Amino acid sequence: MNVFWVFAHPEPRSLNGALRDEGLHILKELGHDIRESDLYAMGWKAVADGDDYAHDPAERLRVGRASQDAYESGALTEDVRAEIDKLTWADVVITQFPLWWASAPAILKGWIDRVFVQGFGYGVKDEAGVVLRYGDGALAGRRAMIITSVGARAAGYSQRGLHGELNEVLYPLQRGTFSYAGMSVLPPLLVAGADRATADDYEAAVAELRERLRTLATAEPIPYRRELGGDYGEDDLLLRPHLARGRTGLDIHRS
Amino acid sequence: MNVFWVFAHPEPRSLNGALRDEGLHILKELGHDIRESDLYAMGWKAVADGDDYAHDPAERLRVGRASQDAYESGALTEDVRAEIDKLTWADVVITQFPLWWASAPAILKGWIDRVFVQGFGYGVKDEAGVVLRYGDGALAGRRAMIITSVGARAAGYSQRGLHGELNEVLYPLQRGTFSYAGMSVLPPLLVAGADRATADDYEAAVAELRERLRTLATAEPIPYRRELGGDYGEDDLLLRPHLARGRTGLDIHRS
Repeated sequence: MNVFWVFAHPEPRSLNGALRDEGLHILKELGHDIRESDLYAMGWKAVADGDDYAHDPAERLRVGRASQDAYESGALTEDVRAEIDKLTWADVVITQFPLWWASAPAILKGWIDRVFVQGFGYGVKDEAGVVLRYGDGALAGRRAMIITSVGARAAGYSQRGLHGELNEVLYPLQRGTFSYAGMSVLPPLLVAGADRATADDYEAAVAELRERLRTLATAEPIPYRRELGGDYGEDDLLLRPHLARGRTGLDIHRS
Repeated sequence: MNVFWVFAHPEPRSLNGALRDEGLHILKELGHDIRESDLYAMGWKAVADGDDYAHDPAERLRVGRASQDAYESGALTEDVRAEIDKLTWADVVITQFPLWWASAPAILKGWIDRVFVQGFGYGVKDEAGVVLRYGDGALAGRRAMIITSVGARAAGYSQRGLHGELNEVLYPLQRGTFSYAGMSVLPPLLVAGADRATADDYEAAVAELRERLRTLATAEPIPYRRELGGDYGEDDLLLRPHLARGRTGLDIHRS
Protein backbone atom coordinates (compact mmCIF):
# COMPACT_ATOMS: atom_id res chain seq x y z
CA MET A 1 0.00 0.00 0.00
CA ASN A 2 0.89 3.65 -0.24
CA VAL A 3 1.31 5.10 3.23
CA PHE A 4 1.60 8.84 3.87
CA TRP A 5 3.01 9.75 7.30
CA VAL A 6 2.47 13.28 8.58
CA PHE A 7 4.66 14.11 11.55
CA ALA A 8 4.09 17.21 13.70
CA HIS A 9 6.58 17.33 16.56
CA PRO A 10 9.25 20.03 16.94
CA GLU A 11 11.95 17.67 18.22
CA PRO A 12 13.20 14.64 16.25
CA ARG A 13 15.19 13.55 19.34
CA SER A 14 11.93 12.90 21.19
CA LEU A 15 9.86 9.82 21.98
CA ASN A 16 7.64 10.82 19.06
CA GLY A 17 10.65 11.18 16.78
CA ALA A 18 11.94 7.73 17.76
CA LEU A 19 8.52 6.16 17.17
CA ARG A 20 8.28 7.86 13.79
CA ASP A 21 11.65 6.38 12.81
CA GLU A 22 10.55 2.94 14.01
CA GLY A 23 7.25 3.27 12.20
CA LEU A 24 8.82 4.14 8.87
CA HIS A 25 11.27 1.25 9.28
CA ILE A 26 8.45 -1.18 10.04
CA LEU A 27 6.44 0.01 7.05
CA LYS A 28 9.42 -0.59 4.78
CA GLU A 29 9.86 -4.08 6.22
CA LEU A 30 6.20 -4.72 5.47
CA GLY A 31 6.81 -3.75 1.86
CA HIS A 32 4.77 -0.56 1.77
CA ASP A 33 5.61 2.52 -0.24
CA ILE A 34 6.04 5.56 1.94
CA ARG A 35 5.89 9.30 1.65
CA GLU A 36 6.39 11.59 4.61
CA SER A 37 5.71 15.17 5.59
CA ASP A 38 7.72 16.22 8.63
CA LEU A 39 5.97 19.54 9.13
CA TYR A 40 8.47 21.15 11.50
CA ALA A 41 11.43 20.04 9.40
CA MET A 42 9.69 21.43 6.30
CA GLY A 43 9.05 24.77 8.00
CA TRP A 44 5.40 24.30 7.11
CA LYS A 45 3.41 27.56 6.95
CA ALA A 46 0.56 27.06 9.40
CA VAL A 47 -1.63 30.09 8.80
CA ALA A 48 -4.17 30.03 5.97
CA ASP A 49 -4.43 33.43 4.31
CA GLY A 50 -4.94 35.08 0.94
CA ASP A 51 -1.37 34.36 -0.12
CA ASP A 52 -2.34 30.69 -0.37
CA TYR A 53 -4.80 31.50 -3.12
CA ALA A 54 -2.97 34.23 -5.06
CA HIS A 55 -5.73 36.45 -3.69
CA ASP A 56 -5.90 40.15 -4.53
CA PRO A 57 -5.75 41.91 -1.12
CA ALA A 58 -7.94 44.72 -2.45
CA GLU A 59 -10.82 42.26 -2.70
CA ARG A 60 -12.68 40.85 0.26
CA LEU A 61 -11.34 37.36 0.98
CA ARG A 62 -13.85 34.51 1.03
CA VAL A 63 -11.68 31.55 2.06
CA GLY A 64 -13.89 28.82 0.63
CA ARG A 65 -14.45 30.43 -2.73
CA ALA A 66 -10.87 31.67 -3.07
CA SER A 67 -9.39 28.29 -2.17
CA GLN A 68 -11.62 26.45 -4.63
CA ASP A 69 -10.81 28.89 -7.43
CA ALA A 70 -7.10 28.48 -6.77
CA TYR A 71 -7.42 24.69 -6.55
CA GLU A 72 -9.28 24.44 -9.83
CA SER A 73 -7.04 26.88 -11.69
CA GLY A 74 -3.80 25.37 -10.34
CA ALA A 75 -2.97 28.60 -8.50
CA LEU A 76 -2.49 27.04 -5.06
CA THR A 77 1.00 27.42 -3.66
CA GLU A 78 3.46 24.67 -4.47
CA ASP A 79 3.70 23.43 -0.87
CA VAL A 80 -0.06 22.86 -0.72
CA ARG A 81 -0.19 21.21 -4.15
CA ALA A 82 2.53 18.78 -3.05
CA GLU A 83 0.46 17.74 -0.02
CA ILE A 84 -2.66 17.27 -2.13
CA ASP A 85 -0.61 15.03 -4.41
CA LYS A 86 0.52 12.94 -1.45
CA LEU A 87 -3.03 12.63 -0.09
CA THR A 88 -4.32 11.59 -3.49
CA TRP A 89 -1.50 9.04 -3.85
CA ALA A 90 -2.04 7.54 -0.42
CA ASP A 91 -4.07 4.51 0.60
CA VAL A 92 -3.42 5.26 4.26
CA VAL A 93 -2.71 8.61 5.94
CA ILE A 94 -1.08 8.51 9.37
CA THR A 95 -0.89 11.70 11.41
CA GLN A 96 1.42 11.65 14.42
CA PHE A 97 1.56 14.43 16.97
CA PRO A 98 1.73 15.23 20.67
CA LEU A 99 -1.75 16.04 22.00
CA TRP A 100 -1.49 19.71 22.90
CA TRP A 101 -4.58 21.17 24.54
CA ALA A 102 -6.67 18.16 23.58
CA SER A 103 -6.00 18.70 19.90
CA ALA A 104 -3.33 18.88 17.21
CA PRO A 105 -0.41 21.33 17.38
CA ALA A 106 -1.09 24.46 15.32
CA ILE A 107 1.33 23.34 12.60
CA LEU A 108 -0.81 20.26 11.92
CA LYS A 109 -4.07 22.19 12.17
CA GLY A 110 -2.60 24.58 9.65
CA TRP A 111 -1.74 21.65 7.38
CA ILE A 112 -5.44 20.76 7.42
CA ASP A 113 -6.63 24.36 7.07
CA ARG A 114 -4.39 24.97 4.06
CA VAL A 115 -4.43 21.59 2.28
CA PHE A 116 -8.06 20.49 2.64
CA VAL A 117 -9.30 23.28 0.38
CA GLN A 118 -12.85 23.71 -0.86
CA GLY A 119 -13.43 21.47 -3.85
CA PHE A 120 -10.99 18.88 -2.46
CA GLY A 121 -11.45 18.52 1.32
CA TYR A 122 -14.98 19.90 1.46
CA GLY A 123 -17.59 21.38 -0.82
CA VAL A 124 -17.25 18.35 -3.09
CA LYS A 125 -20.45 17.52 -4.98
CA ASP A 126 -21.60 14.75 -7.28
CA GLU A 127 -23.13 15.37 -10.69
CA ALA A 128 -26.56 15.85 -9.16
CA GLY A 129 -25.22 18.52 -6.82
CA VAL A 130 -25.32 16.31 -3.70
CA VAL A 131 -22.64 17.27 -1.19
CA LEU A 132 -20.19 14.40 -0.63
CA ARG A 133 -18.91 14.28 2.94
CA TYR A 134 -18.90 12.12 6.07
CA GLY A 135 -17.75 8.94 4.39
CA ASP A 136 -17.92 10.23 0.84
CA GLY A 137 -15.87 12.86 -0.96
CA ALA A 138 -12.51 13.25 -2.65
CA LEU A 139 -10.64 11.11 -0.11
CA ALA A 140 -13.12 8.21 0.03
CA GLY A 141 -11.50 4.79 -0.07
CA ARG A 142 -8.56 5.92 2.03
CA ARG A 143 -7.82 5.11 5.65
CA ALA A 144 -6.65 7.54 8.32
CA MET A 145 -5.05 6.80 11.68
CA ILE A 146 -3.91 9.10 14.46
CA ILE A 147 -0.88 8.36 16.62
CA THR A 148 -0.77 10.76 19.55
CA SER A 149 1.18 11.10 22.76
CA VAL A 150 0.13 12.53 26.10
CA GLY A 151 2.02 13.21 29.28
CA ALA A 152 -0.96 11.99 31.30
CA ARG A 153 -1.83 8.41 32.16
CA ALA A 154 -4.03 6.50 29.71
CA ALA A 155 -6.82 6.10 32.28
CA GLY A 156 -7.62 9.80 31.95
CA TYR A 157 -8.69 9.18 28.35
CA SER A 158 -10.78 6.09 29.04
CA GLN A 159 -14.59 5.98 28.97
CA ARG A 160 -15.17 7.93 32.17
CA GLY A 161 -11.71 9.43 32.45
CA LEU A 162 -10.99 12.96 33.64
CA HIS A 163 -9.72 14.21 30.29
CA GLY A 164 -12.58 12.82 28.20
CA GLU A 165 -12.70 9.59 26.21
CA LEU A 166 -9.99 9.68 23.56
CA ASN A 167 -12.16 9.17 20.47
CA GLU A 168 -14.52 11.89 21.62
CA VAL A 169 -11.67 14.29 22.35
CA LEU A 170 -10.36 13.54 18.85
CA TYR A 171 -13.79 13.94 17.26
CA PRO A 172 -12.95 17.20 15.45
CA LEU A 173 -10.06 15.43 13.71
CA GLN A 174 -11.39 11.91 13.29
CA ARG A 175 -15.00 12.71 12.42
CA GLY A 176 -14.95 16.43 11.69
CA THR A 177 -11.96 16.24 9.35
CA PHE A 178 -10.89 12.79 8.14
CA SER A 179 -14.34 11.21 7.99
CA TYR A 180 -15.82 14.46 6.69
CA ALA A 181 -13.36 14.37 3.79
CA GLY A 182 -14.37 10.80 3.02
CA MET A 183 -11.76 8.68 4.78
CA SER A 184 -12.30 5.62 6.95
CA VAL A 185 -10.76 6.20 10.37
CA LEU A 186 -8.91 3.49 12.28
CA PRO A 187 -8.86 3.61 16.09
CA PRO A 188 -6.16 5.96 17.37
CA LEU A 189 -2.92 4.78 18.93
CA LEU A 190 -2.36 6.54 22.26
CA VAL A 191 1.14 6.75 23.71
CA ALA A 192 0.54 7.76 27.33
CA GLY A 193 2.98 8.87 30.01
CA ALA A 194 5.17 10.16 27.20
CA ASP A 195 7.28 12.48 29.31
CA ARG A 196 8.43 9.74 31.65
CA ALA A 197 8.61 6.67 29.40
CA THR A 198 11.03 3.97 30.53
CA ALA A 199 12.88 1.64 28.19
CA ASP A 200 10.17 -0.95 28.84
CA ASP A 201 7.44 1.58 28.05
CA TYR A 202 9.21 2.36 24.82
CA GLU A 203 9.44 -1.29 23.80
CA ALA A 204 5.75 -1.72 24.59
CA ALA A 205 4.88 1.31 22.46
CA VAL A 206 6.95 -0.02 19.56
CA ALA A 207 5.25 -3.40 19.83
CA GLU A 208 1.82 -1.78 19.72
CA LEU A 209 2.88 0.42 16.82
CA ARG A 210 4.16 -2.63 14.94
CA GLU A 211 0.84 -4.42 15.41
CA ARG A 212 -1.12 -1.38 14.24
CA LEU A 213 1.01 -1.00 11.14
CA ARG A 214 0.80 -4.73 10.39
CA THR A 215 -3.01 -4.48 10.37
CA LEU A 216 -3.43 -1.18 8.55
CA ALA A 217 -5.30 -2.83 5.68
CA THR A 218 -7.42 -5.19 7.74
CA ALA A 219 -8.27 -3.39 10.99
CA GLU A 220 -11.91 -2.47 11.46
CA PRO A 221 -12.47 1.29 11.07
CA ILE A 222 -14.51 3.27 13.56
CA PRO A 223 -18.07 2.72 12.27
CA TYR A 224 -18.95 6.38 11.74
CA ARG A 225 -22.28 6.80 10.01
CA ARG A 226 -22.27 7.90 6.37
CA GLU A 227 -24.32 10.99 5.67
CA LEU A 228 -25.62 9.42 2.47
CA GLY A 229 -26.44 6.15 4.20
CA GLY A 230 -29.88 7.47 5.12
CA ASP A 231 -29.26 7.77 8.87
CA TYR A 232 -29.82 11.52 8.97
CA GLY A 233 -32.84 13.56 7.99
CA GLU A 234 -32.11 15.36 4.74
CA ASP A 235 -34.05 18.42 5.80
CA ASP A 236 -33.37 18.67 9.53
CA LEU A 237 -29.83 17.13 9.55
CA LEU A 238 -30.77 15.18 12.68
CA LEU A 239 -30.02 11.52 13.34
CA ARG A 240 -33.28 9.74 12.65
CA PRO A 241 -35.26 9.08 15.83
CA HIS A 242 -35.18 5.28 15.61
CA LEU A 243 -31.35 5.25 15.59
CA ALA A 244 -29.57 5.43 18.96
CA ARG A 245 -33.06 6.12 20.22
CA GLY A 246 -33.26 8.73 22.94
CA ARG A 247 -29.48 9.01 23.18
CA THR A 248 -27.25 12.04 22.73
CA GLY A 249 -23.49 12.50 22.69
CA LEU A 250 -20.91 12.14 19.97
CA ASP A 251 -21.06 8.37 20.16
CA ILE A 252 -24.46 8.35 18.41
CA HIS A 253 -22.63 9.09 15.17
CA ARG A 254 -21.18 5.56 15.21
CA SER A 255 -23.43 2.82 13.92
CA MET B 1 -14.95 44.53 33.84
CA ASN B 2 -11.81 43.94 31.84
CA VAL B 3 -12.68 42.16 28.59
CA PHE B 4 -10.01 40.65 26.33
CA TRP B 5 -11.20 39.89 22.78
CA VAL B 6 -9.15 37.52 20.66
CA PHE B 7 -10.10 37.62 16.99
CA ALA B 8 -8.91 35.00 14.50
CA HIS B 9 -10.33 35.68 11.05
CA PRO B 10 -8.23 36.60 8.03
CA GLU B 11 -10.69 39.13 6.62
CA PRO B 12 -11.88 42.20 8.57
CA ARG B 13 -14.45 42.85 5.81
CA SER B 14 -16.28 39.65 6.76
CA LEU B 15 -19.37 38.84 8.82
CA ASN B 16 -16.99 37.98 11.65
CA GLY B 17 -15.16 41.27 11.24
CA ALA B 18 -18.42 43.22 11.38
CA LEU B 19 -19.56 41.34 14.48
CA ARG B 20 -16.22 41.99 16.14
CA ASP B 21 -16.62 45.71 15.48
CA GLU B 22 -20.17 45.64 16.85
CA GLY B 23 -19.04 43.65 19.87
CA LEU B 24 -16.28 46.06 20.81
CA HIS B 25 -18.68 48.97 20.37
CA ILE B 26 -21.27 47.33 22.60
CA LEU B 27 -18.68 46.58 25.28
CA LYS B 28 -17.63 50.22 25.32
CA GLU B 29 -21.26 51.31 25.64
CA LEU B 30 -21.59 48.95 28.59
CA GLY B 31 -18.63 50.67 30.25
CA HIS B 32 -16.14 47.81 30.08
CA ASP B 33 -12.42 48.18 29.56
CA ILE B 34 -11.23 46.38 26.46
CA ARG B 35 -8.07 44.90 25.09
CA GLU B 36 -7.93 43.09 21.78
CA SER B 37 -5.65 40.70 19.92
CA ASP B 38 -6.47 40.57 16.22
CA LEU B 39 -4.23 37.63 15.44
CA TYR B 40 -4.17 37.95 11.65
CA ALA B 41 -3.62 41.72 11.82
CA MET B 42 -0.79 41.14 14.32
CA GLY B 43 0.86 38.58 12.06
CA TRP B 44 0.77 36.21 15.03
CA LYS B 45 3.36 33.40 14.86
CA ALA B 46 1.33 30.21 15.10
CA VAL B 47 3.98 27.53 15.45
CA ALA B 48 5.45 26.77 18.88
CA ASP B 49 9.15 25.97 18.65
CA GLY B 50 12.42 26.41 20.47
CA ASP B 51 12.70 30.05 19.40
CA ASP B 52 9.83 30.82 21.78
CA TYR B 53 11.94 29.75 24.71
CA ALA B 54 15.40 31.01 23.73
CA HIS B 55 16.19 27.32 23.44
CA ASP B 56 19.66 26.10 22.47
CA PRO B 57 19.08 24.01 19.31
CA ALA B 58 21.99 21.74 20.24
CA GLU B 59 19.97 20.51 23.21
CA ARG B 60 16.95 18.24 22.92
CA LEU B 61 13.81 20.36 23.20
CA ARG B 62 11.33 19.44 25.90
CA VAL B 63 8.49 21.87 25.26
CA GLY B 64 6.98 21.79 28.74
CA ARG B 65 10.23 22.22 30.62
CA ALA B 66 11.65 24.77 28.18
CA SER B 67 8.49 26.89 28.21
CA GLN B 68 8.31 26.90 32.00
CA ASP B 69 11.97 27.84 32.34
CA ALA B 70 11.50 30.70 29.86
CA TYR B 71 8.30 31.82 31.60
CA GLU B 72 9.91 31.89 35.02
CA SER B 73 13.11 33.57 33.87
CA GLY B 74 11.33 36.15 31.73
CA ALA B 75 12.89 34.75 28.56
CA LEU B 76 9.64 34.21 26.65
CA THR B 77 9.35 36.26 23.48
CA GLU B 78 7.77 39.68 23.80
CA ASP B 79 4.66 38.73 21.79
CA VAL B 80 3.86 35.86 24.16
CA ARG B 81 4.55 37.95 27.27
CA ALA B 82 2.13 40.59 26.02
CA GLU B 83 -0.62 37.97 25.66
CA ILE B 84 0.03 36.58 29.13
CA ASP B 85 -0.31 40.14 30.46
CA LYS B 86 -3.65 40.54 28.72
CA LEU B 87 -4.94 37.21 30.04
CA THR B 88 -3.85 38.09 33.55
CA TRP B 89 -5.50 41.51 33.27
CA ALA B 90 -8.78 40.13 31.94
CA ASP B 91 -11.94 39.22 33.80
CA VAL B 92 -13.45 37.82 30.60
CA VAL B 93 -11.70 36.34 27.58
CA ILE B 94 -13.69 36.16 24.34
CA THR B 95 -12.32 34.15 21.44
CA GLN B 96 -13.98 34.70 18.07
CA PHE B 97 -13.23 32.59 15.01
CA PRO B 98 -14.77 30.76 12.06
CA LEU B 99 -15.12 27.05 12.87
CA TRP B 100 -12.67 25.41 10.47
CA TRP B 101 -12.66 21.62 10.54
CA ALA B 102 -14.66 21.54 13.76
CA SER B 103 -12.02 23.53 15.61
CA ALA B 104 -10.11 26.80 15.77
CA PRO B 105 -8.05 28.12 12.85
CA ALA B 106 -4.36 27.27 13.24
CA ILE B 107 -3.50 30.86 14.14
CA LEU B 108 -5.73 30.64 17.23
CA LYS B 109 -4.53 27.14 18.12
CA GLY B 110 -1.03 28.53 17.90
CA TRP B 111 -2.00 31.36 20.22
CA ILE B 112 -2.98 28.72 22.76
CA ASP B 113 0.06 26.51 22.10
CA ARG B 114 2.47 29.42 22.55
CA VAL B 115 0.81 31.51 25.27
CA PHE B 116 -0.54 28.85 27.65
CA VAL B 117 2.97 27.78 28.67
CA GLN B 118 3.80 25.30 31.40
CA GLY B 119 3.71 27.04 34.77
CA PHE B 120 0.99 29.39 33.53
CA GLY B 121 -1.57 27.51 31.42
CA TYR B 122 -0.77 24.05 32.78
CA GLY B 123 1.58 22.37 35.21
CA VAL B 124 0.51 24.85 37.89
CA LYS B 125 0.76 23.45 41.41
CA ASP B 126 -0.21 24.62 44.86
CA GLU B 127 2.21 24.68 47.81
CA ALA B 128 1.47 21.04 48.58
CA GLY B 129 2.32 20.02 45.02
CA VAL B 130 -1.30 19.42 43.97
CA VAL B 131 -1.83 20.09 40.26
CA LEU B 132 -4.31 22.93 39.72
CA ARG B 133 -6.42 22.40 36.60
CA TYR B 134 -10.01 21.86 35.44
CA GLY B 135 -11.50 24.78 37.31
CA ASP B 136 -8.38 25.73 39.24
CA GLY B 137 -5.07 27.16 38.06
CA ALA B 138 -3.54 30.46 37.07
CA LEU B 139 -6.64 31.67 35.21
CA ALA B 140 -9.20 30.74 37.85
CA GLY B 141 -11.80 33.44 38.51
CA ARG B 142 -11.94 34.43 34.86
CA ARG B 143 -14.66 33.71 32.34
CA ALA B 144 -14.22 32.53 28.77
CA MET B 145 -16.69 32.61 25.89
CA ILE B 146 -16.40 31.37 22.32
CA ILE B 147 -18.07 33.15 19.40
CA THR B 148 -17.87 30.99 16.30
CA SER B 149 -19.37 31.00 12.83
CA VAL B 150 -20.25 28.11 10.56
CA GLY B 151 -21.46 27.96 7.00
CA ALA B 152 -23.82 25.13 7.92
CA ARG B 153 -27.26 25.45 9.46
CA ALA B 154 -27.49 25.52 13.27
CA ALA B 155 -29.51 22.27 13.36
CA GLY B 156 -26.39 20.33 12.39
CA TYR B 157 -24.84 21.31 15.74
CA SER B 158 -27.87 20.52 17.88
CA GLN B 159 -28.17 17.52 20.21
CA ARG B 160 -28.51 14.87 17.51
CA GLY B 161 -27.25 16.97 14.62
CA LEU B 162 -25.06 15.63 11.83
CA HIS B 163 -22.00 17.65 12.79
CA GLY B 164 -22.07 16.82 16.50
CA GLU B 165 -23.50 18.87 19.36
CA LEU B 166 -21.70 22.20 19.49
CA ASN B 167 -20.43 22.02 23.08
CA GLU B 168 -19.07 18.54 22.49
CA VAL B 169 -17.38 19.59 19.26
CA LEU B 170 -15.84 22.50 21.18
CA TYR B 171 -14.81 20.28 24.09
CA PRO B 172 -11.06 20.50 23.37
CA LEU B 173 -11.28 24.28 23.62
CA GLN B 174 -13.94 24.78 26.25
CA ARG B 175 -13.03 21.94 28.60
CA GLY B 176 -9.59 20.85 27.42
CA THR B 177 -8.17 24.38 27.32
CA PHE B 178 -10.16 27.13 29.05
CA SER B 179 -11.58 25.03 31.88
CA TYR B 180 -8.28 23.15 32.18
CA ALA B 181 -6.49 26.46 32.72
CA GLY B 182 -8.97 27.40 35.43
CA MET B 183 -11.54 29.53 33.65
CA SER B 184 -15.32 29.32 33.85
CA VAL B 185 -16.78 28.82 30.40
CA LEU B 186 -19.96 30.52 29.23
CA PRO B 187 -22.10 28.82 26.58
CA PRO B 188 -20.80 29.51 23.08
CA LEU B 189 -22.45 31.88 20.65
CA LEU B 190 -22.96 30.15 17.29
CA VAL B 191 -23.42 32.25 14.16
CA ALA B 192 -24.77 29.75 11.63
CA GLY B 193 -25.30 30.10 7.87
CA ALA B 194 -22.47 32.62 7.91
CA ASP B 195 -21.72 32.47 4.20
CA ARG B 196 -25.25 33.45 3.18
CA ALA B 197 -26.37 35.78 5.96
CA THR B 198 -29.05 38.28 4.97
CA ALA B 199 -29.42 41.74 6.51
CA ASP B 200 -32.07 40.27 8.83
CA ASP B 201 -29.76 37.42 9.83
CA TYR B 202 -27.09 39.98 10.62
CA GLU B 203 -29.42 42.05 12.81
CA ALA B 204 -30.45 38.88 14.64
CA ALA B 205 -26.81 37.96 15.23
CA VAL B 206 -26.05 41.45 16.55
CA ALA B 207 -29.04 41.26 18.88
CA GLU B 208 -27.89 37.92 20.26
CA LEU B 209 -24.34 39.21 20.60
CA ARG B 210 -25.61 42.26 22.47
CA GLU B 211 -27.55 40.08 24.91
CA ARG B 212 -24.54 37.82 25.49
CA LEU B 213 -22.27 40.78 26.16
CA ARG B 214 -24.84 42.39 28.46
CA THR B 215 -24.88 39.26 30.60
CA LEU B 216 -21.17 38.42 30.60
CA ALA B 217 -20.93 38.84 34.38
CA THR B 218 -24.19 37.15 35.29
CA ALA B 219 -24.71 34.30 32.80
CA GLU B 220 -24.47 30.81 34.20
CA PRO B 221 -21.25 29.06 33.12
CA ILE B 222 -21.26 25.52 31.76
CA PRO B 223 -21.17 23.44 34.97
CA TYR B 224 -17.97 21.53 34.21
CA ARG B 225 -16.83 19.45 37.16
CA ARG B 226 -13.81 20.65 39.11
CA GLU B 227 -11.04 18.11 39.41
CA LEU B 228 -10.51 19.13 43.04
CA GLY B 229 -14.23 18.95 43.81
CA GLY B 230 -13.91 15.26 44.60
CA ASP B 231 -15.85 13.97 41.60
CA TYR B 232 -12.91 12.00 40.19
CA GLY B 233 -10.89 9.21 41.73
CA GLU B 234 -7.49 10.54 42.68
CA ASP B 235 -5.77 7.31 41.75
CA ASP B 236 -7.72 6.11 38.72
CA LEU B 237 -8.73 9.54 37.30
CA LEU B 238 -12.23 8.16 36.63
CA LEU B 239 -15.50 9.89 37.36
CA ARG B 240 -16.75 8.27 40.55
CA PRO B 241 -19.29 5.52 39.86
CA HIS B 242 -22.21 7.19 41.67
CA LEU B 243 -21.96 10.28 39.43
CA ALA B 244 -23.69 10.15 36.02
CA ARG B 245 -24.11 6.49 36.92
CA GLY B 246 -23.63 4.11 34.03
CA ARG B 247 -23.28 6.93 31.52
CA THR B 248 -20.44 7.73 29.17
CA GLY B 249 -19.80 10.62 26.78
CA LEU B 250 -18.30 14.05 27.26
CA ASP B 251 -21.47 15.31 28.90
CA ILE B 252 -20.69 13.35 32.07
CA HIS B 253 -18.06 15.98 32.86
CA ARG B 254 -20.83 18.49 33.55
CA SER B 255 -22.41 18.35 36.99
